[in-house]
Amino acid sequence: MKLGSLKSNVSLDGELCVVSRDLKTAVKVPQISANLREAMEKWGEKESALQKVYNELNEGKASGAFAVKEEEFHSALPRTWLFADGSAFIYHIKLVRMARKAALPETLTTVPLMYQGECGQFLAPTEDIPQRDPAHGTDFEGEVGVITDFVPMGVTPEQALKHIKLFVLINDVSLRGLIPEELAGGFGFFQSKPASALSPFAVTADELGSSFKDGRVQLPLQVSYNGNFFGKANAGAMHFHFGQLISHAAKTRNLAAGSLIGSGTVSNEDHAMGSSCLAEVRMIETIETGAAKTPFMKAGDTVEMKMFNEKGENVFGRIMQKVKSVQ
Amino acid sequence: MKLGSLKSNVSLDGELCVVSRDLKTAVKVPQISANLREAMEKWGEKESALQKVYNELNEGKASGAFAVKEEEFHSALPRTWLFADGSAFIYHIKLVRMARKAALPETLTTVPLMYQGECGQFLAPTEDIPQRDPAHGTDFEGEVGVITDFVPMGVTPEQALKHIKLFVLINDVSLRGLIPEELAGGFGFFQSKPASALSPFAVTADELGSSFKDGRVQLPLQVSYNGNFFGKANAGAMHFHFGQLISHAAKTRNLAAGSLIGSGTVSNEDHAMGSSCLAEVRMIETIETGAAKTPFMKAGDTVEMKMFNEKGENVFGRIMQKVKSVQ
Repeated sequence: MKLGSLKSNVSLDGELCVVSRDLKTAVKVPQISANLREAMEKWGEKESALQKVYNELNEGKASGAFAVKEEEFHSALPRTWLFADGSAFIYHIKLVRMARKAALPETLTTVPLMYQGECGQFLAPTEDIPQRDPAHGTDFEGEVGVITDFVPMGVTPEQALKHIKLFVLINDVSLRGLIPEELAGGFGFFQSKPASALSPFAVTADELGSSFKDGRVQLPLQVSYNGNFFGKANAGAMHFHFGQLISHAAKTRNLAAGSLIGSGTVSNEDHAMGSSCLAEVRMIETIETGAAKTPFMKAGDTVEMKMFNEKGENVFGRIMQKVKSVQ
Repeated sequence: MKLGSLKSNVSLDGELCVVSRDLKTAVKVPQISANLREAMEKWGEKESALQKVYNELNEGKASGAFAVKEEEFHSALPRTWLFADGSAFIYHIKLVRMARKAALPETLTTVPLMYQGECGQFLAPTEDIPQRDPAHGTDFEGEVGVITDFVPMGVTPEQALKHIKLFVLINDVSLRGLIPEELAGGFGFFQSKPASALSPFAVTADELGSSFKDGRVQLPLQVSYNGNFFGKANAGAMHFHFGQLISHAAKTRNLAAGSLIGSGTVSNEDHAMGSSCLAEVRMIETIETGAAKTPFMKAGDTVEMKMFNEKGENVFGRIMQKVKSVQ
């Protein structure tokens, strides 16, 4: 099943839609739930009703179906209660530390790194990324995310996997110029992690078929930068799987229904796969040549993210964002 | 004006109530807004209607008024989109660093420390604090918080003050045993900052009279621990005022209506004022005697927080929580 949220003048949560498998048509479902955030709270009740509409829509039998225009869709979940962003691709962490000649954390392979990110108002998937100051070092980070139902505190990684209800892509916008000072302060990221964007469509596990395996989405994340190939790193290379990330997040708290758990920047050791953020390219340049040469994003630069399944079908629609200079 | 949220079986946002100045009576106002979270999105429209009910309630003329029972009230704002918790009491930071013989940050007095905390489901003000493991080092932190309307990115500290719509108390529950490892990882707090509780009642600035001055609430925070005096530190001792904290939070993002900005643990240099968290007492013990002797909270320990105005009236109701051992 595929779901999306139409932009709305009435609610910042948008309007829930069921979207066809081929992403060409959609239908509003206010009779089932006003929005996806609320549907997540009663997923057990809502799922089968949504699935029924999805089946009808794919068969061309849903009344009220309309053609999808991507600019009319918000992030699949326009806002939610928690964005717990992990850093599950160890190679990305290794590159960061190598570039600044820092030691690797002792718990690198045993305890996930995780921070809490902005989730009260995601950018739309085709919305401009605001840039107040080019010195902020605007970067994109391509990630896979999962949306959970209510997760009780203390859940094990295996139990946690059962709480994954939907998958999305995430462009976790990062301001590299602000990170060193923030991390030096000891409290972690805040200003350096502004609003992110999600893919327009969220999908259930069955849409991924055998590609959702071992708690990981085993598909390449296609990233284009200014229209050129930038990366196709496989998201299955997560060291910690999503069950482990959820379990980590829920160690000392319940997770509200609708919580979003991010994988961290998708990263593969094989450089032929490219990258999912500019920082990684800059780190490789630094390691190989002693200096980074690729600049961070400036006004007008664009990034596109999408993922195709084993049949070559677009799973999540696309994130397509341009940097815009703002006051 | 004073507002509260009744616990509800229907909505995790609770039911919005106007509460009398003396905290004895309340009245539901579904005709104005279903809940406080939604009211914050349209504060300009809602404020005068709520104020009218408040005036009637204080005059004993509000129909449907009922007697307040504290256990029926949730946190004033049961859940919201952002909890940006500052650390504005420099003396608290100095004590922490002195106790562990660490250098003070270079930007101590110029850039606020801030992290993003759990806000998707606050504990109720009289709800037990769950403790999975005594080794987690459960502590309370008494804070003052402000709730804003929508704050545009890039707001100045002076402009930011105008976005403060309500005030609350916060018990920012902290797990001291988990903090060293989390901060060593570099990503800041996550597991070490579980769900917090707010005071049952949120109030507008006029309820604080001349005590809201220079962007600070110039009143003592009364803290009792296991029924005994623990602290009465004045919340006016913030180095950074709330306008500065909001401006810091909004440097690279818009803040959603209903955002909660915390002051950090209220702390005064005069030790006769006591403390607002166990960690501070332990730090003073460490500095004075070489070792901390006050243990962190164990099952059954209670903490109470309240604040009285210049006339000796209880402003926010009280936070009164007990630690409970859970699986």
